[in-house]
Order: sequence, then structure tokens, then C-alpha cells
Amino acid sequence: MAEILLDSNAYKHNLNLIASTIKDKQKLALVLKDNAYGHGLEQISNLALNFGIKNVFVKNFTEALSIKDKFESITALYGGASGEIPKNIAMVINDKSQITPLPKGTKVELKVNIGMNRNGIESNELETFIDLILKQNLELFGIFAHNGYGDDLDSEFDKSVERFSYIKSYVKKIAESKGIATPRFHSLSSSGAIRVASCGEIGDDLVRIGIASYGYLDTAFANDISDKLKPVMSLWANRVSTRLLDKDSRIGYSGCTRLDSQKLVSTYDLGYGDGFFRINERKKLFTRDGLEILPRMSMDCFSAYGNADRICVFSDVRSFAKAFDTISYEILTHLSPMIKRTII
Amino acid sequence: MAEILLDSNAYKHNLNLIASTIKDKQKLALVLKDNAYGHGLEQISNLALNFGIKNVFVKNFTEALSIKDKFESITALYGGASGEIPKNIAMVINDKSQITPLPKGTKVELKVNIGMNRNGIESNELETFIDLILKQNLELFGIFAHNGYGDDLDSEFDKSVERFSYIKSYVKKIAESKGIATPRFHSLSSSGAIRVASCGEIGDDLVRIGIASYGYLDTAFANDISDKLKPVMSLWANRVSTRLLDKDSRIGYSGCTRLDSQKLVSTYDLGYGDGFFRINERKKLFTRDGLEILPRMSMDCFSAYGNADRICVFSDVRSFAKAFDTISYEILTHLSPMIKRTII
Repeated sequence: MAEILLDSNAYKHNLNLIASTIKDKQKLALVLKDNAYGHGLEQISNLALNFGIKNVFVKNFTEALSIKDKFESITALYGGASGEIPKNIAMVINDKSQITPLPKGTKVELKVNIGMNRNGIESNELETFIDLILKQNLELFGIFAHNGYGDDLDSEFDKSVERFSYIKSYVKKIAESKGIATPRFHSLSSSGAIRVASCGEIGDDLVRIGIASYGYLDTAFANDISDKLKPVMSLWANRVSTRLLDKDSRIGYSGCTRLDSQKLVSTYDLGYGDGFFRINERKKLFTRDGLEILPRMSMDCFSAYGNADRICVFSDVRSFAKAFDTISYEILTHLSPMIKRTII
Repeated sequence: MAEILLDSNAYKHNLNLIASTIKDKQKLALVLKDNAYGHGLEQISNLALNFGIKNVFVKNFTEALSIKDKFESITALYGGASGEIPKNIAMVINDKSQITPLPKGTKVELKVNIGMNRNGIESNELETFIDLILKQNLELFGIFAHNGYGDDLDSEFDKSVERFSYIKSYVKKIAESKGIATPRFHSLSSSGAIRVASCGEIGDDLVRIGIASYGYLDTAFANDISDKLKPVMSLWANRVSTRLLDKDSRIGYSGCTRLDSQKLVSTYDLGYGDGFFRINERKKLFTRDGLEILPRMSMDCFSAYGNADRICVFSDVRSFAKAFDTISYEILTHLSPMIKRTII
């Protein structure tokens, strides 16, 4: 069976590096959504807990419930609440229709659009939404946004930071006038947090670190930590069968690999059915140790030269992301939750 | 929450069409591996059971166990056996190392290479392997192969058919000489089965139908059923939030969609973290009803014009497969098992 190994030292190293960069470990919240970016929610949440993390963000209520005993606060970004909602789970509000179905007393975090024009309410709707939340007897736990320009040298990044700063002052006044506790504020993910920290203090109550904690951070601007982060995941495949093939033998679907000399060839138990990206005859990609993954990859296996019992497909996913015109996040999150994850 | 709808009538239609093409419903075995090609193993196995299917193939022992009460025989293609193995689960043998760990009495199917040069033993190793299997007191339940040239106009297809035909006669003789029951024989998947059936009778004991049962069959040769198959899966996403945006507003990461006029824009709860393929600014892709999926797709959502509450992302996955230089299988199997599947 293919296996994902999770390097606990690399993870700890990344969290320490990020904590020292943002200069306040207490502000470090982690994004564990989408099965911890494909790394395994159960395993990564245990590592985060051991590190002393108190606040995390997950995709939905199902993910939140599965780790409910581990953190002081768990925010479900994309709904799905049903039945009783544990006191430490907060649900995100993006739209009026998401308020009324929630039971009294539920913690909510209200998302505000600060320029990405994707999710969240508009800042001029803040008071209306806060009133609706209070009317439903929900607890306004947080006000947050997402700065979608963190990776780029784009003046929109700073404009978005300013907008959130304005929103914070505005919400503080509303909270005071209504006699409710000031909610927590957060707006920065990995690249944004590193960028703001490089120029001074993080003004928000916490930062939501996703991809950097897993060892990757690609930004258009120079930063101090990208080169120091260590990828947490390595992906391994095990040998299924081996044969010695003559020159001109063809391998795989449509026989599109053809041997230029006699070679020992093995198959390994990882394919695109495991969520890995399918390698066809228009791609030339190699395992960590330089073995070509011979096209075409099958649904449940691929072929490579030699007969090693176990090979490391990658310990750094960037070459695959580049070959598939995408980002490391996508290759990682697609990996099937059925693959065994092991902490080392 | 995004949702996958499974059209039970389309599935039944496909199975009837395939059964009538191969002219023997009893020979119709189904491939339910990799979460039923992403459709949902639980749901599709129930539909297959209702149709009267007796024999199925899954990825590994974990998948086999999860449906153990539904079929007369379930073959786990890629190992993973542990603990007691139910009598109706057969494990596949590709290598000597896979024989000895199996407990006495386990049913096994021995895979033979007939020209794809991927998995399986060589035909000249057959007697040795059968001896090892009997020595371990396993039950030789099947001998099978995979013809990897089914989709192509390639003479290798017919050569592979011939090789399997020779193997069948040879194994029958071995079985007779050793006084064991003749195992079952199978070598054809969707395209191969349709191809052989179009010229006459299926000589094998069963055919392993995967992709065609889900409504797709792309072959380089003309065939009678491709155009008549109906895709079983449609993928749906629900609105998260909506806003009216002015001309020149930018949307999403790096703001790479820019509006040429004022527009109503909504986000929907499906992203590449759900196993869907990430749409960036170099792709132009549309939902079933012609709404552009605006780049860049986020991990958990995408943006589109309008404010429909629920939209059908696809009811036929081929346009997405083509855009990502891949095959329908890959787009389907990558879809996260966490997405809700509903039979309609």
C-alpha cells in the first residue's frame, strides 16, 4: 500500500520558524482544512496539539467534530452544522441565510470582504449582520477576512490591510455601543502574515497559517522563511511486481513507453485513483531519487525501472506542481484520505 | 455543501446496454475500485446489487470489507489483507511475496501479463505459481489478465487476446493434472469487452466493466455503445455568498478575474480541496449550463456570475478532462470521498 510519511520534526521546525517570524506564538493559529491540506487531519491535529496550538480552522462541521477534543477553538469555514454544536466550534457566516438555522448560543465568526471579492459580507453591512447575529442569540466570536493578494507584489495587498484595519476600529465601536465583547480579528494567511511581520507587528489577534506550516511558501516577494521551511509530507509507493523486459517492449496503457534496451521494470502501488496526478506521455517526471515515472500512469499503479521494494515518489511536491501548471496545495490536497498516513 | 448526484436510471441503462452487447448478463462483473471511480462505493455497490450483479472488483481489502455482504465474490486487486478474510473475498497475486502472508483457504486470483508489461506474472511462471499457491493451501479462484490495448487500433490488442486464449488452455491442463477445479478466467475491461463482443462471443467467464458502467467509453475505434451510454454522476455546488461588483473589480487570488462591466457574482462551495481540478487564468471552463468558472478557483470555492442558489458543475465530465489533458477517469476518481453522494 502506498503510504504518506509525515515528518514531525519538519512540522515542529516550521511552526517554530513561523512563530519566531510573527514574534508571538500565541497568535499562531493553524489551518487544518481539507484533511490538513491532504496531510491527514487526525495526524496533523495531534502534532499541532503537541506544539501547543489553541486555535484552528477546518473546512466544515464534519472536520471540526472529528477533532473537537483537541483545541480551544475550531472554526468551520464552510458550514455543515447539524445537531448539537460543541461550545468550542465556531461557524462562519458569509450570508444572511446562514444565520437563522444556527441554534442559540452558537459561536460565529463573520467574514468580511476586503477586496478579494470572493466570500464574506460587505463592510457596510457589518452592523446589520451583527444585529441579526445578536437577534438570533448567537455569540459573535470573530470578525475576519482573507487578504487574497498576499503572494503578489500588488498594491491591493496594502489596501486590503488598510480596509481590515478600518473594519476593526468600526467593529470595536459597534461592540461597545451594543455592550458585547469585542470579537477576535484575523485577516492574514501564510504569505500575508510573513509580509506584515517583516515590516513590523501583527496587529490582528491571530494569523491563520496553512501552507507554510506544511513546508511551502511561494511568494513573488523576497522573504526570510521560504528557503528555511521543510516539507512535512513524503509520499511512498511499494513494489507490486517486477519483470525483465527486452528492447522494444512496450509498457502500460497503449504501450506508450517503449524500451530502448533490455531493462528490469517494476510496478508500484500508487496511481491517479489515489488522487495523485496522472502522468501521460506528454510529461516527463521523476521520483525523489531520479527514477522516471513511466507513462502512462494507471489508476492504481505506475511503472519505473529497477526493482526497489519501496520508493519515495516525492519529499518536495513542487516539481509535480510545476509540471501540472498548478500549485503545491492542489497536488497535496488531492491525495486520497484512504492512503495510510504515518508520523515519523 | 457540494453534492454528487448519482442517476440510478442512467446506471441501470448502462448496465442493460452493456449486458445486451456482451449477450450474457451473467458474465457482467463490475469494477468498483477507487470508491467506484469516485462515484461512491457504498452507493454504487447498492445499485449494482439491485441490478443482480454477483462479481465485483475493488482496489484493496479495505474496500472489499466495506461491501462484503453484498456480492458472491469480491476481488481485492491491490492487497492489504489483514485479520480474517471472508470467504467471498479473493486476493490478487502479482508476485511470490504476496502468497506466503495469506492464511490457508484464502481465495486468490493470479494475474498474468499478456503484453501490457505492467502487473502480473509471466505465463512461463504459471505452473510454479500454481504450485506455490497450492502448497500454501490457498484456493486458486481465478486466472486473469488485463488487455491494455482495448482503446486503440493496435494489433497488440489481438495478440494479447491470443495470449490469454493460450493461457486458458494451458491452465486448464495444469488444473486437470493436479486434480483441482478449473479457475475462472477474465481479461477484458470496458473497451476490450465491447470490441470482442462486436466480433462474436466473449470466451472468458466474465468481463470486468468499469468506466462504461459509469457512462463513458472513449475508444479509437467505432463502437455501438459509446454514444448511448449515460453519465451517472453530476456534480453540484451551492451558493456561499453574493455581491454586486463594479466594472474593473477584481475577483479571487491575485485578483486575476477583472470585470468589464458591473456584475452580480456569487461563490460556490466547491474547490480543488474537494478533489476537483483547479482552474487558473490559463483555462476557460464552464458549468453544465454555460456559467464560466472564474479563475482562480480557490481550495474550497469558486466564483461565477449570477446568484443561483445551486448550480450543476458538470453532468458530463469530458470537457474538463480534455481541458486538463487527461481522461474522464482521473477527474471522477479525484473527487473527495467527503463530498456527499446521493442516489436519485
